[in-house]
Amino acid sequence: MSEEYEVVIIGGGPAGLAAGIYVARARLNSLLVEKGLVGGQIANAERVDNYPGFPEGVGGLELGELMHQQAIKYGLKTIIAEVTGLESQGKQKMVKTTEGNFMAKAVIIAGGASRQKLGVPGEDKFIGKGVSYCATCDAYFFQDKPVAVVGGGNAAITEALHLVKFAARVIVIHRRDQLRATSIMQEKAFAEPKLEFRWNAVVEGIEGGDFMERIRLRQVKTGEKSTIEVAGIFVSIGLNPHTDYLKGVLPLDEAGFIITNDQTETEIPGIFAAGDIRHNSPRQVITAAGDGAAAAIFAEKFISG
Amino acid sequence: MSEEYEVVIIGGGPAGLAAGIYVARARLNSLLVEKGLVGGQIANAERVDNYPGFPEGVGGLELGELMHQQAIKYGLKTIIAEVTGLESQGKQKMVKTTEGNFMAKAVIIAGGASRQKLGVPGEDKFIGKGVSYCATCDAYFFQDKPVAVVGGGNAAITEALHLVKFAARVIVIHRRDQLRATSIMQEKAFAEPKLEFRWNAVVEGIEGGDFMERIRLRQVKTGEKSTIEVAGIFVSIGLNPHTDYLKGVLPLDEAGFIITNDQTETEIPGIFAAGDIRHNSPRQVITAAGDGAAAAIFAEKFISG
Repeated sequence: MSEEYEVVIIGGGPAGLAAGIYVARARLNSLLVEKGLVGGQIANAERVDNYPGFPEGVGGLELGELMHQQAIKYGLKTIIAEVTGLESQGKQKMVKTTEGNFMAKAVIIAGGASRQKLGVPGEDKFIGKGVSYCATCDAYFFQDKPVAVVGGGNAAITEALHLVKFAARVIVIHRRDQLRATSIMQEKAFAEPKLEFRWNAVVEGIEGGDFMERIRLRQVKTGEKSTIEVAGIFVSIGLNPHTDYLKGVLPLDEAGFIITNDQTETEIPGIFAAGDIRHNSPRQVITAAGDGAAAAIFAEKFISG
Repeated sequence: MSEEYEVVIIGGGPAGLAAGIYVARARLNSLLVEKGLVGGQIANAERVDNYPGFPEGVGGLELGELMHQQAIKYGLKTIIAEVTGLESQGKQKMVKTTEGNFMAKAVIIAGGASRQKLGVPGEDKFIGKGVSYCATCDAYFFQDKPVAVVGGGNAAITEALHLVKFAARVIVIHRRDQLRATSIMQEKAFAEPKLEFRWNAVVEGIEGGDFMERIRLRQVKTGEKSTIEVAGIFVSIGLNPHTDYLKGVLPLDEAGFIITNDQTETEIPGIFAAGDIRHNSPRQVITAAGDGAAAAIFAEKFISG
């Protein structure tokens, strides 16, 4: 026999925790399944300055902990397990996990997405000390300093164009000899005097002391090595939504993100998606939390009929 | 000559302030126009318990003030003025206000919606002291107490079904002899033992001491008067979005809310809507703030091309 719940929430980041606060306050019999650390990716953020309500900023770990406390206060039940499958069985949904299966009337998928890492020496060591995966979050810390952006798609160029308002100069490092970004973005980028490009180049390592100080590059065509001095590096080479187990279950976009309407509803009634895992999510703590609360309210409505 | 901005934000509640934090941090030349008190409707909430990040709750006025400080810290410019019109002039938009006209490349409409009030003696006096317009926000305060709900539509019955999980009994007061809610909701409502109905009844007044203690009712058919003792009254008789000046400018739903896609975009490129004013908004502080941040990010992308 599987345990039965009204709502099962997959993921314990800001989206899942906000959903958890709302379902617990609504006294829905609910379970939140998190595979690792409750708090999600914000636990990696040294400081969150753009979550409304904290004018002095708040530590990422602390913000996750505050949200978790709030959900627990209202009685949310949490387990640590990895979700391996989701099946719609008529009115019931079955969430399969490494700790057993759970039945639910409504499921909120809030499993997030991981930033693709470079996988080079120094990258992990300098996260929050120069290495960033979000210019919207961290550009402010790099006023009048030189920074690098890695990538050549729309996301990378958006990051670079955001950074020029802060940084002294912005060096875009791209492994090909042309950008994948749209023509209009390329035009803007090439017209921007603070932007420089290093074509056919890959990052081989990140070095420094307490904070990062420089990047080691390799020219892919010539094999030539070089070093550039920058205070920060923004890695924008892709995002991996945690949706492997959803292929064939729900409509996903090309990159694997879940498609929803403006009510966080997926194509299957009773299955909702919230936060970074959602197609078109702006991927911020506040938008994830907003999504989570919205999904909880729509799930409650769905269950009430 | 009108002043020119990159982004004009209409409304200074959680949606507008979150948008303000994001546009200011993105160094977009921006203006927020608020007609009254910055903070919006949350300023009326004695206590907000469901905004993720504040496990002990936070005063409504205080939360608005914290968001405002955060936006000011990053340089957001604010003026007090009433918006009277919005015109799309090719790539530029003109926001007309009582303090002059402002041109913008992108406009974020975050003007909110007012809960329709009963307009009876005692209503204003007991707001936050028994009178509420949001069961999701306040049901928790009425554990094992008798409460009333005024209204007969889907929203009112949703409120009532939410309240039965907390309150000792829930009395639905409706001015007609049948509900407007969907059949399936009516079925649930009629099957719920804690729900009672007072048909053809209207509220004539709310009375009490420090907190409300009773409601005076009038039977519309017989004129008979009565009193019921309740600790709370949830008024759910409609919402008025602040969109009078947008009729004929943007597609609105039947009730006047702005229709958007899942990226807060309206039908007119460069015009975004966020928060309670948006069709399908769950109308919570956190969802409004999430919307506002999302609109700011999509507005920045729109301006970057």
